[in-house]
Amino acid sequence: MLYFSCDYAEGCHPKVLEALSKTNMVSTPGYGEDEFCQQAKAKIRDYINCPDADIYFLVGGTQTNQVVIDSMLSNYDGVVAAATGHVAVHEAGAIEYSGHKVITIPGHEGKIDATELKQMLVDHYADDSAEHMVNPGMVYISYPTEYGTLYSRDELEAVSSICKEYNIPLFLDGARLAYGLAAQDDLSMEDIASYADVFYIGGTKVGALFGEAIVFTKGNTPKHMITQIKQHGALLAKGRLLGVQFDALFTDDLYMQMGKNAIAHANTIREDLKKKGYHLYMENPTNQIFVVMENSKLEDLKKEVAYGFWEKYDEAHTVIRIATSWATEKASVEALKKIL
Amino acid sequence: MLYFSCDYAEGCHPKVLEALSKTNMVSTPGYGEDEFCQQAKAKIRDYINCPDADIYFLVGGTQTNQVVIDSMLSNYDGVVAAATGHVAVHEAGAIEYSGHKVITIPGHEGKIDATELKQMLVDHYADDSAEHMVNPGMVYISYPTEYGTLYSRDELEAVSSICKEYNIPLFLDGARLAYGLAAQDDLSMEDIASYADVFYIGGTKVGALFGEAIVFTKGNTPKHMITQIKQHGALLAKGRLLGVQFDALFTDDLYMQMGKNAIAHANTIREDLKKKGYHLYMENPTNQIFVVMENSKLEDLKKEVAYGFWEKYDEAHTVIRIATSWATEKASVEALKKIL
Amino acid sequence: MLYFSCDYAEGCHPKVLEALSKTNMVSTPGYGEDEFCQQAKAKIRDYINCPDADIYFLVGGTQTNQVVIDSMLSNYDGVVAAATGHVAVHEAGAIEYSGHKVITIPGHEGKIDATELKQMLVDHYADDSAEHMVNPGMVYISYPTEYGTLYSRDELEAVSSICKEYNIPLFLDGARLAYGLAAQDDLSMEDIASYADVFYIGGTKVGALFGEAIVFTKGNTPKHMITQIKQHGALLAKGRLLGVQFDALFTDDLYMQMGKNAIAHANTIREDLKKKGYHLYMENPTNQIFVVMENSKLEDLKKEVAYGFWEKYDEAHTVIRIATSWATEKASVEALKKIL
Amino acid sequence: MLYFSCDYAEGCHPKVLEALSKTNMVSTPGYGEDEFCQQAKAKIRDYINCPDADIYFLVGGTQTNQVVIDSMLSNYDGVVAAATGHVAVHEAGAIEYSGHKVITIPGHEGKIDATELKQMLVDHYADDSAEHMVNPGMVYISYPTEYGTLYSRDELEAVSSICKEYNIPLFLDGARLAYGLAAQDDLSMEDIASYADVFYIGGTKVGALFGEAIVFTKGNTPKHMITQIKQHGALLAKGRLLGVQFDALFTDDLYMQMGKNAIAHANTIREDLKKKGYHLYMENPTNQIFVVMENSKLEDLKKEVAYGFWEKYDEAHTVIRIATSWATEKASVEALKKIL
Repeated sequence: MLYFSCDYAEGCHPKVLEALSKTNMVSTPGYGEDEFCQQAKAKIRDYINCPDADIYFLVGGTQTNQVVIDSMLSNYDGVVAAATGHVAVHEAGAIEYSGHKVITIPGHEGKIDATELKQMLVDHYADDSAEHMVNPGMVYISYPTEYGTLYSRDELEAVSSICKEYNIPLFLDGARLAYGLAAQDDLSMEDIASYADVFYIGGTKVGALFGEAIVFTKGNTPKHMITQIKQHGALLAKGRLLGVQFDALFTDDLYMQMGKNAIAHANTIREDLKKKGYHLYMENPTNQIFVVMENSKLEDLKKEVAYGFWEKYDEAHTVIRIATSWATEKASVEALKKIL
Repeated sequence: MLYFSCDYAEGCHPKVLEALSKTNMVSTPGYGEDEFCQQAKAKIRDYINCPDADIYFLVGGTQTNQVVIDSMLSNYDGVVAAATGHVAVHEAGAIEYSGHKVITIPGHEGKIDATELKQMLVDHYADDSAEHMVNPGMVYISYPTEYGTLYSRDELEAVSSICKEYNIPLFLDGARLAYGLAAQDDLSMEDIASYADVFYIGGTKVGALFGEAIVFTKGNTPKHMITQIKQHGALLAKGRLLGVQFDALFTDDLYMQMGKNAIAHANTIREDLKKKGYHLYMENPTNQIFVVMENSKLEDLKKEVAYGFWEKYDEAHTVIRIATSWATEKASVEALKKIL
Repeated sequence: MLYFSCDYAEGCHPKVLEALSKTNMVSTPGYGEDEFCQQAKAKIRDYINCPDADIYFLVGGTQTNQVVIDSMLSNYDGVVAAATGHVAVHEAGAIEYSGHKVITIPGHEGKIDATELKQMLVDHYADDSAEHMVNPGMVYISYPTEYGTLYSRDELEAVSSICKEYNIPLFLDGARLAYGLAAQDDLSMEDIASYADVFYIGGTKVGALFGEAIVFTKGNTPKHMITQIKQHGALLAKGRLLGVQFDALFTDDLYMQMGKNAIAHANTIREDLKKKGYHLYMENPTNQIFVVMENSKLEDLKKEVAYGFWEKYDEAHTVIRIATSWATEKASVEALKKIL
Repeated sequence: MLYFSCDYAEGCHPKVLEALSKTNMVSTPGYGEDEFCQQAKAKIRDYINCPDADIYFLVGGTQTNQVVIDSMLSNYDGVVAAATGHVAVHEAGAIEYSGHKVITIPGHEGKIDATELKQMLVDHYADDSAEHMVNPGMVYISYPTEYGTLYSRDELEAVSSICKEYNIPLFLDGARLAYGLAAQDDLSMEDIASYADVFYIGGTKVGALFGEAIVFTKGNTPKHMITQIKQHGALLAKGRLLGVQFDALFTDDLYMQMGKNAIAHANTIREDLKKKGYHLYMENPTNQIFVVMENSKLEDLKKEVAYGFWEKYDEAHTVIRIATSWATEKASVEALKKIL
């Protein structure tokens, strides 16, 4: 069986496993107060050229979104997101559970539009009933988006400017950050750190067993952050596991190498699909490929390939997701090409 | 100054005030355990022909929506509402504050469409990711809607059927219930009680100082309801004030008479506006009239008439709201007609 | 039947009713944006000699405690209170429902001890695990307490000083404020305003139909306060009802006169009880009297007097509460004395 | 440096690491829908002889306590716990954050007393104000307790009986379950499963990198449990990591072997301490030893031994915690004995 259903199907990159194994019997204090965490944070700060960045390691994506949003917002605030955003749809109401509304604006292939964002803010503050409405207290974007698309540098700049103008923090969900940066030549993680007020570097989908690194870039860490993390059930006892993993991810450029591996294989598959006349549901340059397939064809395909169901296209067709990752190997890609 | 800006601008109907005055120095137990509350409940049960209805009196609308929704839903549930619904827009995030997502579907002049509701439910339960999404645990509609429109009997029947089919309670927000029923000949409060699993009879906007009567119609009261009401800060110490008022509202058909007063005056104004060629922003048969006015005209109007700002129409025009109520008098209506 | 069970058994003081009646048909904007509210606030500011006090009118006590505590605390904060405090015991978990722990310290006849408060804070901040614990973010006291006792000026001063030292706001619950001030010659509402960072002036138990006035005394109003109030379901549509009532309460010293009425009658009853050899469960100078009664005696008493059950004393005795109020009349007191 | 400060200072048992390494590149579905999880659950069900047990794997202890308590309780419920219980003190308010009060009763060396529990319930339901108070909806105990003490079989039986009598679920926090069972000959995990309505088997402190296994033993799993777990940010993407680890823990009796290792070493240290005349702050039979030490002695000790600070004893003495674990080796114990 070829496995292309998602980018978190395997354990971790061998180098991460090696680091975990090597440090396994070292005794450390808990809750992230260990040296591995300090070392990993130093490497990240260095990598993003942001010496004052304040960094926290959490376990998973929904948890990270919940903690960042809830700790940065006040009671009266909601978070603005694309209607298709992960926080708006696929997090089981984790944001609302923490008391905050997700204020949705249209998603355009997963992205919000800076002009529409601005219009929403203008309308909100001009509304006589603004006091009776949730205050827009943060803007959430994902990079890459849930559809694998990317904001251009100009688009990021525009969204960031509006956030600055309205004094609203911009939060960038980088669950698949490596796959975005590897697909976009003119944007670096340093740029991300500059545009966003807070972002996270996804480890779960990029070669770690688990782990997301929250980065506060503007001296804007919420108070009592460790207490807030614990209150959300998100403070890992053996925090050093996150330090060890992120240390490995940011050694010898492993994080970006894994990103490039996924993108190269995704591009190969994409070209092959196009050559064969498949219809791509949505064009995007990252590690997720959305293809429209005949239902009859899928019956055969599922015997050999694990893919992701995305949505029904019409009576006779379905949109499926083919995802590459840090773990994808050339042989699997070639095998997939033969089957398609 | 003529006052047409909203339907809660005055205190209460003289008969309600009389009842409050007459009973003012009577000593009673608190928290709704008094005889006035019992008597008012009995009258409501009788009026809706639902002897087993379980009734709770609360103070205001947002509070009532929050308490009903939060007490009936489980953690994993959200409430389905029109994107324009009061709970989705104008309650300062009171629903999300209580931990629940408002799952929006399109509003059609304020109403949800039964077919679209069904499709949403079908799609939800067919979705492979349903477990990662908020469960649709209640359907919320307002009658009249925020735009003054009304569901026809067939439309209510259709929405109600789908709720039954999916075993999801239907909650009807009747903040302006009297104004809806007075405008719709073929539907009674008994019908409302039959279609809805829970609804509330609005007092604040219909002649009470304050007060909303929640009616559970199907033996479906949440457990420990008094505790839940108190937990939301919504248990009035002198609960008898609500009993006294609702007793008065349901004596000698006062509630419906007040509804008819508002509708008769609204119809007069509406006809006058049409005759004079004004453009109604939205047709509706109840006590709120939405008119498109030239901005220049408004400058003069606001000197003599208190109206509600609704929204900008275009550069030169604005949508305003003219609301009648139980308190509207013929003389004011005639005066308004002269000004318009 | 003589009614001495609580201080919220009747409607409102005749002067309050008169004010409500007189203004009943005046049209005003909603949500407290009316002139009556402005006027009442001005009178309160003047009365407490605190021209910058920021004032909000809410409906009831639990609601007020929830809104004040939740709007002033951050996620990571809890509120410190006596183990017997109303917020710790009798509010159905309204504080926890809003996400905050009530951190209890011992109650001494309802009061917290400044030295114990300080020790708790010292211990907390010295604790290696402080980050894993809820942060003490506010101190809550009630005046009078739930047991009718009063903090002396020195005691208030001491608690207030410690709060200042630790930069923690002091919140004083004045649900029965008039009864406290009327019983304590050397303390004024101006003093309360000076010691507390936020307090509320209780109306529900002192002559209003309902209503509590939150007073922020130090330029410390939480942001977006109206939105926060609405989010808790606590924004009264006809806010003017609160303005009208508090305006009446603060006209011609009515508020304090009502307090004095209750205290004078309570003192009469207390002296009578002592003369007759009854055992007072707890000495206090305010409007609540806690008496130990033989169970056999109670059987007769309850036929003529409505009193409050407080708690079981031993197999043969019960502690009951006799409460006077603004509404207590001399004739009732004399009748009660004959029965006791 | 000898490490005795806690039982989560190292990574995982070599056999667990081996299992993780061996399965690292296997592709599986996410969120616990993999075969490793199924296999681990089967082994646990078998081990506790409870074929219908429903099992969920979570990452950490605070998270597990929050998810179990919040998913089993209704809004109006609180959880009863010892005043010293972990959920009452050291979880940063995670329970209150989820809306529930921790109702404390006295802790006796960490344990609640069945008679006191019963009295609290009797008093609660007899209280006229019960509707105004949080309902006791669950009883929480930890085994071992935070002080390393254990409930005897009779004590567990007594607490369990009262819970059954009042129809309140009993939740047993087994963060250190192996260390409890290894120290108590007459009680098995099967017994725990029988007494408790829900409990968790701690992995984080017993040889796993992380992981706690929630076991619902009475067909009492809350509805939509996966959605609830995700809503709390507690659904691990690569759920298989938990399956793989618990599979290893329940293979060849590894879990209990690790428990026995810790207990044997703790007993050796305890005997040595007693022989040398140290004063044990609290007697207990499990892996945590609480010793009263002279402060002057500690200055030297801390150069060679990492121990846990527990609390100040008096001006000249401190209570420290020495913890053994699955990872403790004989050589370290001998070295420690030489230093003490």
